[in-house]
Amino acid sequence: MKQYLKGDNWNIIEEDFHPNLQRNTESIFTIGNGRMGQRGNFEETYTGDSLKGSYVAGTCYLDRTRVGWWKNGFPKYYSCMPNAPFWSGVDLQLIDEELNLDVWDIQQFKRTLNLKDGISLRSAIVTSPKGNILSINVQRFYSMAHRDIFVIRYAVTSINYTGRISIIPNINGDVIHETSNFNEKMWNIIRAETNDSQAYLWVQTKRGNSQICCVENSELTKNGTPTKNRPVRIEKEKKVGFMLGADVKPGDNLIMTKYVAITSNQYHSNEDLLSDAINEANDAQQIGWYNLYNEQLEYWHKFWKKNDIIIEGDDEAQQSIRFNRFQILQNYPSDHQRLNIGAKGFSGEKYGGNTQWNTELCVLPFLLLYTNKGYARDLLLYRYYQLPQAIDNAEKLGFKDGAALYPMVTMNGEERHNEWEVTFEEIHRNAIIIKVIQEYIECTNDTEYIAKYGLEVMIAICRFWNQRVTFSTRKQQYMILGVTGPDEYENNVDNNWYTNYSCVQNLKFTIDNLRMVEQNYPNDYKQIVEKTNFNAQETEHWRDIIERMYYPYDKDNEIFMEENGYRDKELLTVNDINPEERPLWQHWSWDRILRSCFIKQSDVLLGMYLYYNDFDKDTIRRNYHFYEPRTVHESSLSYFVHSILAAHIGEIDKAYNYFVKANRLDLDDINNDVRDGIHVTSMPGSWLAIAEGFAGIHFKKGVMYCEPIIPDKWESYSLTVNLLGYPLHIKVTKTDVTFRYDGQISNKIVVYDKDVNLMCGRDAVIKRV
Amino acid sequence: MKQYLKGDNWNIIEEDFHPNLQRNTESIFTIGNGRMGQRGNFEETYTGDSLKGSYVAGTCYLDRTRVGWWKNGFPKYYSCMPNAPFWSGVDLQLIDEELNLDVWDIQQFKRTLNLKDGISLRSAIVTSPKGNILSINVQRFYSMAHRDIFVIRYAVTSINYTGRISIIPNINGDVIHETSNFNEKMWNIIRAETNDSQAYLWVQTKRGNSQICCVENSELTKNGTPTKNRPVRIEKEKKVGFMLGADVKPGDNLIMTKYVAITSNQYHSNEDLLSDAINEANDAQQIGWYNLYNEQLEYWHKFWKKNDIIIEGDDEAQQSIRFNRFQILQNYPSDHQRLNIGAKGFSGEKYGGNTQWNTELCVLPFLLLYTNKGYARDLLLYRYYQLPQAIDNAEKLGFKDGAALYPMVTMNGEERHNEWEVTFEEIHRNAIIIKVIQEYIECTNDTEYIAKYGLEVMIAICRFWNQRVTFSTRKQQYMILGVTGPDEYENNVDNNWYTNYSCVQNLKFTIDNLRMVEQNYPNDYKQIVEKTNFNAQETEHWRDIIERMYYPYDKDNEIFMEENGYRDKELLTVNDINPEERPLWQHWSWDRILRSCFIKQSDVLLGMYLYYNDFDKDTIRRNYHFYEPRTVHESSLSYFVHSILAAHIGEIDKAYNYFVKANRLDLDDINNDVRDGIHVTSMPGSWLAIAEGFAGIHFKKGVMYCEPIIPDKWESYSLTVNLLGYPLHIKVTKTDVTFRYDGQISNKIVVYDKDVNLMCGRDAVIKRV
Repeated sequence: MKQYLKGDNWNIIEEDFHPNLQRNTESIFTIGNGRMGQRGNFEETYTGDSLKGSYVAGTCYLDRTRVGWWKNGFPKYYSCMPNAPFWSGVDLQLIDEELNLDVWDIQQFKRTLNLKDGISLRSAIVTSPKGNILSINVQRFYSMAHRDIFVIRYAVTSINYTGRISIIPNINGDVIHETSNFNEKMWNIIRAETNDSQAYLWVQTKRGNSQICCVENSELTKNGTPTKNRPVRIEKEKKVGFMLGADVKPGDNLIMTKYVAITSNQYHSNEDLLSDAINEANDAQQIGWYNLYNEQLEYWHKFWKKNDIIIEGDDEAQQSIRFNRFQILQNYPSDHQRLNIGAKGFSGEKYGGNTQWNTELCVLPFLLLYTNKGYARDLLLYRYYQLPQAIDNAEKLGFKDGAALYPMVTMNGEERHNEWEVTFEEIHRNAIIIKVIQEYIECTNDTEYIAKYGLEVMIAICRFWNQRVTFSTRKQQYMILGVTGPDEYENNVDNNWYTNYSCVQNLKFTIDNLRMVEQNYPNDYKQIVEKTNFNAQETEHWRDIIERMYYPYDKDNEIFMEENGYRDKELLTVNDINPEERPLWQHWSWDRILRSCFIKQSDVLLGMYLYYNDFDKDTIRRNYHFYEPRTVHESSLSYFVHSILAAHIGEIDKAYNYFVKANRLDLDDINNDVRDGIHVTSMPGSWLAIAEGFAGIHFKKGVMYCEPIIPDKWESYSLTVNLLGYPLHIKVTKTDVTFRYDGQISNKIVVYDKDVNLMCGRDAVIKRV
Repeated sequence: MKQYLKGDNWNIIEEDFHPNLQRNTESIFTIGNGRMGQRGNFEETYTGDSLKGSYVAGTCYLDRTRVGWWKNGFPKYYSCMPNAPFWSGVDLQLIDEELNLDVWDIQQFKRTLNLKDGISLRSAIVTSPKGNILSINVQRFYSMAHRDIFVIRYAVTSINYTGRISIIPNINGDVIHETSNFNEKMWNIIRAETNDSQAYLWVQTKRGNSQICCVENSELTKNGTPTKNRPVRIEKEKKVGFMLGADVKPGDNLIMTKYVAITSNQYHSNEDLLSDAINEANDAQQIGWYNLYNEQLEYWHKFWKKNDIIIEGDDEAQQSIRFNRFQILQNYPSDHQRLNIGAKGFSGEKYGGNTQWNTELCVLPFLLLYTNKGYARDLLLYRYYQLPQAIDNAEKLGFKDGAALYPMVTMNGEERHNEWEVTFEEIHRNAIIIKVIQEYIECTNDTEYIAKYGLEVMIAICRFWNQRVTFSTRKQQYMILGVTGPDEYENNVDNNWYTNYSCVQNLKFTIDNLRMVEQNYPNDYKQIVEKTNFNAQETEHWRDIIERMYYPYDKDNEIFMEENGYRDKELLTVNDINPEERPLWQHWSWDRILRSCFIKQSDVLLGMYLYYNDFDKDTIRRNYHFYEPRTVHESSLSYFVHSILAAHIGEIDKAYNYFVKANRLDLDDINNDVRDGIHVTSMPGSWLAIAEGFAGIHFKKGVMYCEPIIPDKWESYSLTVNLLGYPLHIKVTKTDVTFRYDGQISNKIVVYDKDVNLMCGRDAVIKRV
């Protein structure tokens, strides 16, 4: 836990420079616009510890898989979003000195991430080894209005220096790939050129077919007047840019503005990549810094007006819930079905920018509840379009007849992970693909989605389950052997309760919807049957599995068991662990973790969260009280689930404490790993903890239920969720809950078990229970 | 299965060259003398597929560990015996052509491995692309009389060629390391020089401190007369040697003899390495080819006289049982406590030449039964001297107070393996360390070994078990959770029967011997107590574990279960597998193997083999009949165990069939992996199958029991085993069993449950039952 960052409700601020935490700060100060982004790296040369990283969504390098001992079925390549050319570089030189914050003295230093405006700022007063003092002031942002544009306004004022100042805006393709398996460079340079007005670098991944092109325009003013000097062109093998400069005396001020257009072949054809970037960079310069800046503010202010959560009485919570929303928006384009969201977004290289099941567990439900349903639908379609690869993945593992196994990590649908206990055995990932379709239908009633897309996916996954279960002759029940649950601290176990339970829910939901589509969309049904070669008799065995599935149960404690063997473990609690040995994965050998009772994130509780309507509160309470004390939360997905469940069973302090951990996971570096990047795909969990936990929102048969509670510390909280396509504003105070629905027709919800009619545009005030 | 090799009872012969099987042949034609050796590579340039490999026992390179996802507790380095400089090179050039069997036409070709003499031979008639025809004849051997000496006699006769023939004996340090994790070169060249009479190459591993020095002397005769020409010296950065040559006309014959001395710092000090090698190479040349050759024959003939097994009526079995014995002797020095035996000996790089538990399961019992007991004792001491590292290994995994975990693979006692399910979980490897001490005592009555060395090891291992068990409160029994048994096709299982059973046997044997040492060796006992900080009360918990250990049992079938979950699997048999999907590990994904009922090698049966006296034949039979049909034998250690158990329960055809597989595993390439090297540490299994299986030898309380049977196909078989330090000759025919004991005092054994008194030097003839 690190609490060196300050700020207020709208700003994250680092006062004074913390070089030993630079990697952390770089992660937190990540900026982007969904298409691209970067860590909070300095523009100038910096020789201290740093992870320089800029990334473009959807770019992919195929790294040769590295394993100790090859096992049949491992993927040949690991896909990763490669560190892109460093386009934000601005070097600063005096006559014979170069600015380097690792070397120069720092008198004043302040970095600000302005969440309200979507701008990153840095100011410093620095003294060179020779005693020259400068004042630096940098602003930068990734334009939300022009998604290929990044701008920096780099200002320097001489305090006591007389002489030449050179400012060198540049683009550098010679970047480091810290996670490369065999220390390979990932980019080939297609072209690196500088002409009189523009510098450009065009690159292509060595394996994989990603191309990006970066074009830079730049301009310099001295004391507000454009300089006339012709810039020196920089054109090296992998680096391009300009050297701008002017002679200054104390008090003089130089401002360099750098406009960078970054085009990728995700959004442009390879043929147009360069010309589009050239045009966009020219256009940006034409528009100019001030107009771009104002557009940016306008975008973000509008965004917050619609999307803010307001928490009164808890500044830390207020700051962080906004920070999380800010980062979700920055790191995910939410605008098509081709791109998904990597665990670290643009904030780092860990997990390679691949898509994981976090999307379905955390991001998609968030989008569904808070935003335009189309964004959630896009993420469903993302998986729909990758169904052929999911079928291929299953075939590689010996499955047949159209059974699908969705990948653990992927960019294009092909499995890329290479730990057998994960890749081959974490098959629960298949279940959530159907579960979110189910959630989507609950929230939207868009049954047509099932007919047009969902059912195909559902059939393929059910076929997988059908082949994957084993019938135990001694128990006369179906079992699922050799799996790893979401709790990755148990590997290759038999009958992981969550996996078994969600397998059956998948089968049930699919059988129901086969009937629904056959009745309501007969033409689609016919097409699907034909396309998938589906035989209605397949469901007979599915029904048998539904009826005779085995669930591990502990009669003594009346709880579901994580898996067959859990109850034989030594049943300690987290309090028995020496705090110096936390987190366990950094201190214990793997076998010790596996045979201990300690849980990374609880599978049983996760099941109760996801299938909330299936369990009464006493059952949830018993299981919660058994597993929660044994959970070490070494997954970033654990906290919000615990917060929501604790809220459900009325343990409001626990709910609040877990909310704080989910909410401030990154800002306070709770899991001691922010240096690698922020947990973009877990961040929606903090929003869900407010909506589903405190506000108690859940859907049953298409109706929204709401049971708001409020943490002691809070005066009130307000949020706006999406109800059938229109905003529902909810404000919860100590005494009341106020709803206002901005829909077109009135709507019914259930609040504290009572029906409430929402009249459009009118407040409905309910007493808090 | 490949059966292209022919031969007779004393020779392995390749008639005609099989370039597509060259790697196989190279493995089979491995030669060595325990200190060093090499694959059957050609001396000349060969551009076809080949694994050029020469190795020196005990040399070690520390390769950086390669894993996909690091887990706490993994070793930093993987140790391997590096491919040594290629000292057997002899290039052959005509005026403008170079001999290369990948390119030249081959008219005649024959390779012979002469087991009786310990010599490798090759003859060929070859035609160059330009039509020049030569006859080649090569003999070579690693001297058993002079263990640092390797000699080649390379003869070439011109059939139709007139002109210069150059013969270039050389030593090449620029070798390929196929198994290097990161494609690194493993050797630094300390010195590479050639003077008028000698060429030498002195190298050191880049990590690890192994040094070897190779010195070459060579001489050339033309038509029997030494040539006078001064050889051309070759001295490159990594390659040294000479170019010898003469002008020939058809019918002329050149013979080049190359004497190589190879010294390593396993046997020489670094200071003397070079001078010793120089002197030894000079001495060898002084002795000369013919004398060295005759010494070699003398050594091997003497060896066979003492050590042969004779099988009448089964030439294939006769050939292969000798081949196996030949390779065991060649690949293992058997002469000190510092070196052990790698799985592939000098025949390949797989498993890196490390020590594995094969030593205790297969090699050590073989040495105990067939050879001087001192060799077995040396291998016990090998582990004794590595006890401190075993304690370190356990500490790294969180154990304490002197608990030891012996390594899965190692050179110096430190764990080097890096698969968590193996490294951390195959803890059964600890059990066999005590089991072989037990066997050693049964065979030798050398209880002093326990007092001086064994007990310390035993206490440390028992402490490990004591900490590793878990008490299941629901069962009120001890369990061992999260292990992998010898059957590596089940990972991270609970209560592997074999592990649980042998843990208890370890504890019992240790408790018994604590008492024995306390009584019979009180001074040693005192010292051990002091050194290990042993408290007699420790055994109380050990006794509780002995009494309350849980053993998985299947009541329906009355068999011990491999592990808790085995009985829930789909119980198919090997006949249900599509033959095209064998071996499974090359065709099935790992999860499928794990959740199938198919067994790599049966743990329950292994336990019954090792603890044979504990089980009645009906129990063995029931378990054998259950597991044998589910075993795929994808471990080279499986066949001999099955052969012996089948013999025990009187299933002689099964016993014979499994013996054939154990015996001809390499010659017929039964597991389709001989290209990587021969299975040196499993080869003793074929000898054990005869002694323990067919001859039915086992020990109970220090007495030898013997229940010979004979396979249908065999007329008779004869073997000589070691009984209390003296040879006991046994000959089994269809009707009789004849014993002759060459001991000093008469001795009692039990044959078919009846006592037989062996009078020294006199035959005892018993009717076969």
